[in-house]
Amino acid sequence: MHVLGIDAGGTKTVCLLADERGMIVSEGRGPGANLLAAGELGVEKVLHEVMETAIGDRAITPAAICLGIAGVDREDEARTVRAIMRRIGYKSRVLVVNDALIALVAGAQDAPGIVIIAGTGSIVYGRNAAGEAARAGGWGHMIGDEGSGYWIGREALAAVMRAADGRGPATQLGGDILAHFAVDDESRLPRIVYDRDQPRMSVAALGPIVERAAELGDAVATRI
Amino acid sequence: MHVLGIDAGGTKTVCLLADERGMIVSEGRGPGANLLAAGELGVEKVLHEVMETAIGDRAITPAAICLGIAGVDREDEARTVRAIMRRIGYKSRVLVVNDALIALVAGAQDAPGIVIIAGTGSIVYGRNAAGEAARAGGWGHMIGDEGSGYWIGREALAAVMRAADGRGPATQLGGDILAHFAVDDESRLPRIVYDRDQPRMSVAALGPIVERAAELGDAVATRI
Repeated sequence: MHVLGIDAGGTKTVCLLADERGMIVSEGRGPGANLLAAGELGVEKVLHEVMETAIGDRAITPAAICLGIAGVDREDEARTVRAIMRRIGYKSRVLVVNDALIALVAGAQDAPGIVIIAGTGSIVYGRNAAGEAARAGGWGHMIGDEGSGYWIGREALAAVMRAADGRGPATQLGGDILAHFAVDDESRLPRIVYDRDQPRMSVAALGPIVERAAELGDAVATRI
Repeated sequence: MHVLGIDAGGTKTVCLLADERGMIVSEGRGPGANLLAAGELGVEKVLHEVMETAIGDRAITPAAICLGIAGVDREDEARTVRAIMRRIGYKSRVLVVNDALIALVAGAQDAPGIVIIAGTGSIVYGRNAAGEAARAGGWGHMIGDEGSGYWIGREALAAVMRAADGRGPATQLGGDILAHFAVDDESRLPRIVYDRDQPRMSVAALGPIVERAAELGDAVATRI
């Protein structure tokens, strides 16, 4: 007997094939598959690819598939993803949950616990001893995801533009981010960011720059 | 002799055909054509359509075209737009400027002045008696546009999600925005917003709701 476990986040998707002892047999990797950001077709394409890669040429039908996927918070959204899995055609038992739950189970197994995720997006998810779950945040790049990589990068870029305009305090983030994108003038930053194929990921990638500037004592970076 | 004047903003584009006395002969309208948001091909399509509509069946070659376009702040960006205009094929003299400048000239003619624009995006632009210009803001939806319709709507949605999570103070914006989108539960808001063809415009459309809530004394709306 084999099972598939899939972790579909905002930036990458990992699919593991395991045997009945829980030993990992193989792995498939793909880009992000957040239902809110990638859309149904995008999610279907990524899931199909990572499962095909993990199973490869083996004559295996997984007995069960557990899919933890970002952007799935409501029963109707889980239903959408189960329909995607049916279209892909695996006749396995499929369990669809938010990606925060699989992170919690990975860390706390069945014990009560809270998981705080700050990746490309952010969410907090917890479950008590009675099995009752609660969440906060995780509402996506536009209206939530406070503390996520994207949020940190967006705050940093906004602070750099304010400093360049003379509307905000000077910050070493300006020079750091100009160097990161290899340009010499803040007014070029907006178009560089917006013109990327994946503008949100290029913004989220600024997180480590902000962290370093904060460690060096930059007041603007520290406030972010 | 005829001239064309085009105002290409984030949400709509207006093209006016005028005769040598400055009398408006006809008008063409299209969707937004912000270079940062719509991309080169999107801008080309919109500009082509509004100019064709304004000129119609008239056997007219405009002597000059002035194009004020959002997202054009640097000489290389203006060059990109002039190349678009050449591809469209009008053999007229073409002047490409930021859309904030045409708003300033419309209000202040050649006198010194400052224009503050808060539409889908936001920018402040001014020119002194010596003709020296300066700007602040206008850096687009991700990293600027403070005070714009999109920014106001985004802040409102984030506040509503925080209130629903129990992370922020209660606000009447929750009920107002649920009613606006005709849903009964905040957890449905993210997908409604992200699934729209034009998510930023649907967020910017929340501006009047925030204004009304602030007038009614809602503390969260007032702070936005």
